[in-house]
Amino acid sequence: MERAQSPGDPTTFETHPSRYKHWKLSVNGDIATLVMAVDGDHPHKPGYELKLNSYDLSVDIELADAIQRIRFEHPEVKCVVFTADLDRVFCSGANIYMLGLSTHSFKVNFCKFTNETRLYLEDASAHSGLASLAACKGTTAGGGYELALACDEIVLVDDGNSAVSFPETPLLAVLPGTGGLTRLVDKRKVRRDRADVFCTTAEGIKGKRAKDWGLVDQLVSRTKWDEVVAASAKALAAKQTVTRGPAVQLSPLEPKVTPEKLSYRFVELTVDARERTGALLVRGPDKVDAFDGAPKMEAGGPAPTAGSEPWSLRAFRELDDALLRLRFDYPECNVLTVRTTGNAETVKACDEALAKATSGFAREVRHLQRRVLKRYDNTARSFYAVADTADSCFAGVLLELALGADRFYMLIDGDEKIAVSTSVANTGFFTTSTGLSRLDARFYGEPARAQKVLARGADGAIASEEAEQLGIATIAADDIDFEDELRIAIEERASLSPDALTGMEASLRFVGPETLETKIFGRLSAWQNWIFTRPNSTGEHGALTLYGQPERPQFQWKRT
Amino acid sequence: MERAQSPGDPTTFETHPSRYKHWKLSVNGDIATLVMAVDGDHPHKPGYELKLNSYDLSVDIELADAIQRIRFEHPEVKCVVFTADLDRVFCSGANIYMLGLSTHSFKVNFCKFTNETRLYLEDASAHSGLASLAACKGTTAGGGYELALACDEIVLVDDGNSAVSFPETPLLAVLPGTGGLTRLVDKRKVRRDRADVFCTTAEGIKGKRAKDWGLVDQLVSRTKWDEVVAASAKALAAKQTVTRGPAVQLSPLEPKVTPEKLSYRFVELTVDARERTGALLVRGPDKVDAFDGAPKMEAGGPAPTAGSEPWSLRAFRELDDALLRLRFDYPECNVLTVRTTGNAETVKACDEALAKATSGFAREVRHLQRRVLKRYDNTARSFYAVADTADSCFAGVLLELALGADRFYMLIDGDEKIAVSTSVANTGFFTTSTGLSRLDARFYGEPARAQKVLARGADGAIASEEAEQLGIATIAADDIDFEDELRIAIEERASLSPDALTGMEASLRFVGPETLETKIFGRLSAWQNWIFTRPNSTGEHGALTLYGQPERPQFQWKRT
Repeated sequence: MERAQSPGDPTTFETHPSRYKHWKLSVNGDIATLVMAVDGDHPHKPGYELKLNSYDLSVDIELADAIQRIRFEHPEVKCVVFTADLDRVFCSGANIYMLGLSTHSFKVNFCKFTNETRLYLEDASAHSGLASLAACKGTTAGGGYELALACDEIVLVDDGNSAVSFPETPLLAVLPGTGGLTRLVDKRKVRRDRADVFCTTAEGIKGKRAKDWGLVDQLVSRTKWDEVVAASAKALAAKQTVTRGPAVQLSPLEPKVTPEKLSYRFVELTVDARERTGALLVRGPDKVDAFDGAPKMEAGGPAPTAGSEPWSLRAFRELDDALLRLRFDYPECNVLTVRTTGNAETVKACDEALAKATSGFAREVRHLQRRVLKRYDNTARSFYAVADTADSCFAGVLLELALGADRFYMLIDGDEKIAVSTSVANTGFFTTSTGLSRLDARFYGEPARAQKVLARGADGAIASEEAEQLGIATIAADDIDFEDELRIAIEERASLSPDALTGMEASLRFVGPETLETKIFGRLSAWQNWIFTRPNSTGEHGALTLYGQPERPQFQWKRT
Repeated sequence: MERAQSPGDPTTFETHPSRYKHWKLSVNGDIATLVMAVDGDHPHKPGYELKLNSYDLSVDIELADAIQRIRFEHPEVKCVVFTADLDRVFCSGANIYMLGLSTHSFKVNFCKFTNETRLYLEDASAHSGLASLAACKGTTAGGGYELALACDEIVLVDDGNSAVSFPETPLLAVLPGTGGLTRLVDKRKVRRDRADVFCTTAEGIKGKRAKDWGLVDQLVSRTKWDEVVAASAKALAAKQTVTRGPAVQLSPLEPKVTPEKLSYRFVELTVDARERTGALLVRGPDKVDAFDGAPKMEAGGPAPTAGSEPWSLRAFRELDDALLRLRFDYPECNVLTVRTTGNAETVKACDEALAKATSGFAREVRHLQRRVLKRYDNTARSFYAVADTADSCFAGVLLELALGADRFYMLIDGDEKIAVSTSVANTGFFTTSTGLSRLDARFYGEPARAQKVLARGADGAIASEEAEQLGIATIAADDIDFEDELRIAIEERASLSPDALTGMEASLRFVGPETLETKIFGRLSAWQNWIFTRPNSTGEHGALTLYGQPERPQFQWKRT
């Protein structure tokens, strides 16, 4: 048996269906099936057993991988069916003992990652012609039901026993942590008083009532189960109008990992543990990506290599991986500079090629870039974008990193080599979770200013001083002041309370309209963050701590 | 010197300008001036001194009273000017030592109340022709700047020294707790990267930069101060198009208070400390309110009495007071039944009279009812509305209490005396903080069902069984089951973790679109709730704990 990850080991977010331990992916025509078959003996870290299809980070990493691969490698798939290899349990949710053993920062980051994975499932349905069906043939509890809620349709077995449930509040004194409350009332539009009953009924709701209340879409007997599930999947698949493809295999990322540095082909993350700071560097493309014409990396063809993958895909997959490792493995790295290096014109040309390409594959690449940029927005670290060398290339899709950062520092150089550039990538495709583009969010309430930047950008690169005047740079300074100003800003930031910064950044970054997504991260996660730290859940006599033990939890009764 | 409130004393939210200790209210034509002149020797509770126009609950209770009275008693006022009696300080925010001495539940409820007061100021501007101007002639820090942000216009003195600031994050490791972050970027549309700089700069921002960044609207020298402030107030007043009046003095509420019971004319709150439960009872009107014709209670006339105030005003002022006392004085009262008693037809007739009345006073009464119902939505206790007697009167504006409750239990009686009724009050005026009516929020995504209820309601009372079928009652049961079902539901609720319930209810109650208001309560308050409990702020070595002492705070550095 392969050993579980030890504390301190780097977290690996890369996997492959051939190595899955907890899911079985199969594809049959336009239907993919993901069978949840959690291997209890392979938890993410030692100390607990994954019984009854309960999940932990390793299980969710495989799930995220599977959804991503279906989008790229199985473009023929129009519907993914979630089911389980157990007869009486679909999924019993996040493993409680795992939560009990985890640090607060791990718990919060685990919830955030599982939320993102479920949002990506919804994203695939909304944008990529990939619907999803939860075929719940047995107990569907907690995070298991949250997975079902993220699907387009929920089918529950009608066996007089199987229920959907959110037992978190009554049993653990915490909330359903993966968007469940919001999806219940805002997505499925379950009446709020019924949602109240549901969320406080540990055993959940089954049968006709589950259907009447809108908790599930269909009730199906055991005898008709396979037939109805197959027909429902077919029906969902038939509704899809977006075409993906051609199939492209995702190449391994295989970063070089040391305690101080993650090195990928285009991305580098350097960490200074003593200073609690980091440096994120993204390299621009060497050449312009080609998207149309014959696909270079067909499924079933020779194994893809990093070199064969377009920069637009590769660099953002690397960035995604780096952000996840930053969250989980470097919890004390509080402030990061974000720099770019390369040729701005080539970045812009890649953006143009991607926007003009007609293939479904190219569209998938853009959607992936959009998701990765959202992951960046949603990473609870301070990001200071910095343009201080002539080969800085905050252009197009990379300019989004500067617009998404908490601040953007630009050095004013004599010959105006340091500049930003806009491209088609900045005109609205890369929405944040509020639904606004990063330029519109920056100039919230003044859309004309965003248009002015785009109009000016169409005329060529915008040097530091003008970028500040236009509102792109937070601070532009000449070389007498720049280095000191930036150094002091980083030192000051690194000295502030990380909790207060997380709350402050979450409030300032997500200006503007709210969506299901911002509600999930901005409200639900915030509540969860608090509730997880309360003695009533994680204290010595808290419900989460005492779960599975004979002792009754003892609560502090003051309401706040 | 009058003593401060002792711990355990009931909190009194009633006051009167003649008794203000911390504000001076004067009215001159269409301009009112509220001078902040905090009396340091009269804190809300003993243990700290209110220096430098810092505030505590007592100061904010007077502020809330003043805004309310200007709306009702001074309808000629079109603009209220906030200023201070100190020469170099406008307001230095919430008192830090008060926060340090307070329990977590007090802090959270204090923040919620101050948020509500500021939202009411914005409400007065939006709906009642009462604009506000913050005349900040000196340091405007923390909650002081949050008060300014709630005004329509901010004037800052340009003396080379006076700044606006949010020092909470850098100095105290908490967030600006009164909607400041949201108002900065969402209301005033300060660019998010500039907001980031502002919120981490303890000394704040003054002069031209404050104006350029949109933190203030005008900069004025000391020599021109009085003149410009007066002119700005006049200009704001001149813009108002809504007319209030006639003037009506608010009568004293003077509830009878015992540790187990608050008794008002129309409202009763009974608390069972051992069971952690409560019972809220609202009595319907004895007679139909009259709003048009000669006002009964002119300003300057004889002191008003409870009997002379319309039920529509009186009952909701009492309910408001009871909700505030519930929040502050009964923190362990977790679950409350909400019952009504009286004549449903008279309630409906009052609603009709109010909706048809043409006076500004009548409109103010409706706005007050709307605010009180929002205060109810926003009270972190479980509310179970109960209709189980023939004289129950969940009709019209009182039906909103059932629709706003977490659940609504109705007894099915043989002769269908127990029923709900709709009125004009349910058709959309009483929006929740999401902007939806309570009926539309209940049937979110299915507006036709709300219309169906209103259409059915127009035909007469809706008895329990039908109310359940229409989706108004959560549970309707006959007398064999009713009592047990309700009893068990209350006992179960009272046994659950109060923290988890608060988070759950906040997520389920505010279904639908988000607004500045829901962002403030749902996001900012949630973050604040968490951050206040973190060791980095309130721990032994936390920044809030050590404020004013030579020791440096020690932080836990993990980001979550």
